[in-house]
Amino acid sequence: METPFHFELLAQDGAARAGIFHTPHGAIETPIFAPVGTQATVKAVTPAQLAETGATLVLSNTYHLYLRPGADLVAEMGGLHRFMQWPHPMLTDSGGFQVFSLAQMRKIDEDGVTFKSHIDGSLHRFTPEKSIEIQEKLGADIIMAFDECAPSYDRAYNERAMARTHAWLLRCQQAHTRPDQALFGIVQGGVFPDLRRESAQFVAGLDLPGCAIGGLSVGESKAEMYAMLELVTPLLPTNKPRYLMGVGTVEDLVQGIGRGVDIFDCVLPTRLARHQAAMTRSGRLNMMNAGFAHDPRPIEEGCTCYTCQHFSRAYLRHLIVAKEMLAATLLSIHNIHLLETLVQQARQAIIEGRYAAFAQQAFAALGEAK
Amino acid sequence: METPFHFELLAQDGAARAGIFHTPHGAIETPIFAPVGTQATVKAVTPAQLAETGATLVLSNTYHLYLRPGADLVAEMGGLHRFMQWPHPMLTDSGGFQVFSLAQMRKIDEDGVTFKSHIDGSLHRFTPEKSIEIQEKLGADIIMAFDECAPSYDRAYNERAMARTHAWLLRCQQAHTRPDQALFGIVQGGVFPDLRRESAQFVAGLDLPGCAIGGLSVGESKAEMYAMLELVTPLLPTNKPRYLMGVGTVEDLVQGIGRGVDIFDCVLPTRLARHQAAMTRSGRLNMMNAGFAHDPRPIEEGCTCYTCQHFSRAYLRHLIVAKEMLAATLLSIHNIHLLETLVQQARQAIIEGRYAAFAQQAFAALGEAK
Repeated sequence: METPFHFELLAQDGAARAGIFHTPHGAIETPIFAPVGTQATVKAVTPAQLAETGATLVLSNTYHLYLRPGADLVAEMGGLHRFMQWPHPMLTDSGGFQVFSLAQMRKIDEDGVTFKSHIDGSLHRFTPEKSIEIQEKLGADIIMAFDECAPSYDRAYNERAMARTHAWLLRCQQAHTRPDQALFGIVQGGVFPDLRRESAQFVAGLDLPGCAIGGLSVGESKAEMYAMLELVTPLLPTNKPRYLMGVGTVEDLVQGIGRGVDIFDCVLPTRLARHQAAMTRSGRLNMMNAGFAHDPRPIEEGCTCYTCQHFSRAYLRHLIVAKEMLAATLLSIHNIHLLETLVQQARQAIIEGRYAAFAQQAFAALGEAK
Repeated sequence: METPFHFELLAQDGAARAGIFHTPHGAIETPIFAPVGTQATVKAVTPAQLAETGATLVLSNTYHLYLRPGADLVAEMGGLHRFMQWPHPMLTDSGGFQVFSLAQMRKIDEDGVTFKSHIDGSLHRFTPEKSIEIQEKLGADIIMAFDECAPSYDRAYNERAMARTHAWLLRCQQAHTRPDQALFGIVQGGVFPDLRRESAQFVAGLDLPGCAIGGLSVGESKAEMYAMLELVTPLLPTNKPRYLMGVGTVEDLVQGIGRGVDIFDCVLPTRLARHQAAMTRSGRLNMMNAGFAHDPRPIEEGCTCYTCQHFSRAYLRHLIVAKEMLAATLLSIHNIHLLETLVQQARQAIIEGRYAAFAQQAFAALGEAK
């Protein structure tokens, strides 16, 4: 089958990789961080502002869009890219994670999941086929297989969930029809090395255009997450992008890239922004802090984002104290820009064969702040 | 005294005027509409987005900034232009209107007003001298005399308030020291022709760089407002800008311009935006309306604002239903752009000597929608 998807591996430095993932809506230079636009909008920023942060790939949530405004409406409006006016690459998740974490009264069986909407309590059912059908209507470039993310430490649950995730992946592959969408499979297995290994081998064997690693950053320790990454990524195809789902701290991005991850997504930068926190290379700043009241400096000296190029900490604190919406916008711009700049610099370091030094420097900056 | 303020009257068409008001932060092409940035931010938009709407002059509120973050802090941060990053002309009101409308437990005497903050109930006192002192710290290009706006129909109250307003204007003139700020006096007098006439003559006699008309659009009928404008503007100097305070509907702008007003301000476009309403040349649209759920059209066909150039009514409705902040941003951009485009077109019509036809067309568009 002719495919518009192609991953060019440009450089490797240890396990870290720099590449280009080609999609129908343009090339994604990896490693990349994807901000999250849950309800077809990255909260508090316009697409124009988002593009200025350096973001290329944006994730949107199938569960939320299915409930509101509905996949048919999005399709009728020309698909997600056009609806939300993001002309660059997009990714939708399968809805699985939200069904298991947000929806009420869920009932799982081998065929799928029945759940109640967190919005109005109405009854719905997702199956692998239904998830793919919705994602095909939404029309993102990258779509995800419907999976089950089990509690990290429950061995028996993880065994069942992994088996189900694999069976569902085969059904997603069967159901998937649009050649302009890349279906990624998801590796599960909790914190159990043998399960993770089995799952990675299973997903790797299907020759999908990309592989995701799910069920991490959901309660296990950082050491366990890194150990699972070290175990999983070597088992995945080198000529396909690897996507670590739901990860978005500076430390985890640098650690993940160092272990061969190419794509990340997380609500963290925008969620923190709405809770008055600015992300920096050396940690987080609570911009509500009275110590910033008279501070004429930007959030981070040298930062090239719109926020830091224009506004003082004193102004940002004023906006927060005065409950002005602009605070969330300006902090979102800064936080996303921070992560995009981080992955761009990581990419350059990989290309120049100095990723270990880059990572060491990043950890040192974080350490100094502690 | 050398002054950086100078009003060039470029064209007159009936009573309507096209001009340029020169200020230390650039030229204001009149007629102009000033959006309101109450707390040193035009709610939900960045300065970059605001500039794109065509706005040049922005109003900020002395009462709010005095209470939070405080005039000294704004001064310490380099003044209001720098603090909120609006490099174009700015105007501050005197705080009078807010003290009389927002503050609690106010006590007025001939010297000034004592009031309690609406934020924390703390006790404060504004006098004409204090208002000027605060406005000099804030540093806007245009500052306003401290006045008292009386209930439209109370004759006795309006007589007292007008006398006080005139006495306070003289004190403001005395107190004012910064040559890079233009102090405007305010005409009061409610709906009483003789009081309005007396007030206009008094303010006109002081040779101030500009004259404002206050106490309108505060409860009187439209016919009364227009009658007062017709009576007042011919008494004001032709070589100084005239500012009608707190007016911002399409109809009132067209009527006001037709009666010789050069400057307007109002919270309306941004307040409506936060209440899901889009302004159009033919009236208002409640974007929450279910009828827009599947509507692929922009708010207004032919509108060149960022919102209409990109987003459908269906998307805007989705954002509103999903309670996304972006809705307020996109609607604010559209609504401000609508009024800026209106005054720009009015200006062109005046220059070309066809303002009556322009106004007739504007009223017809509004009439058709009824």
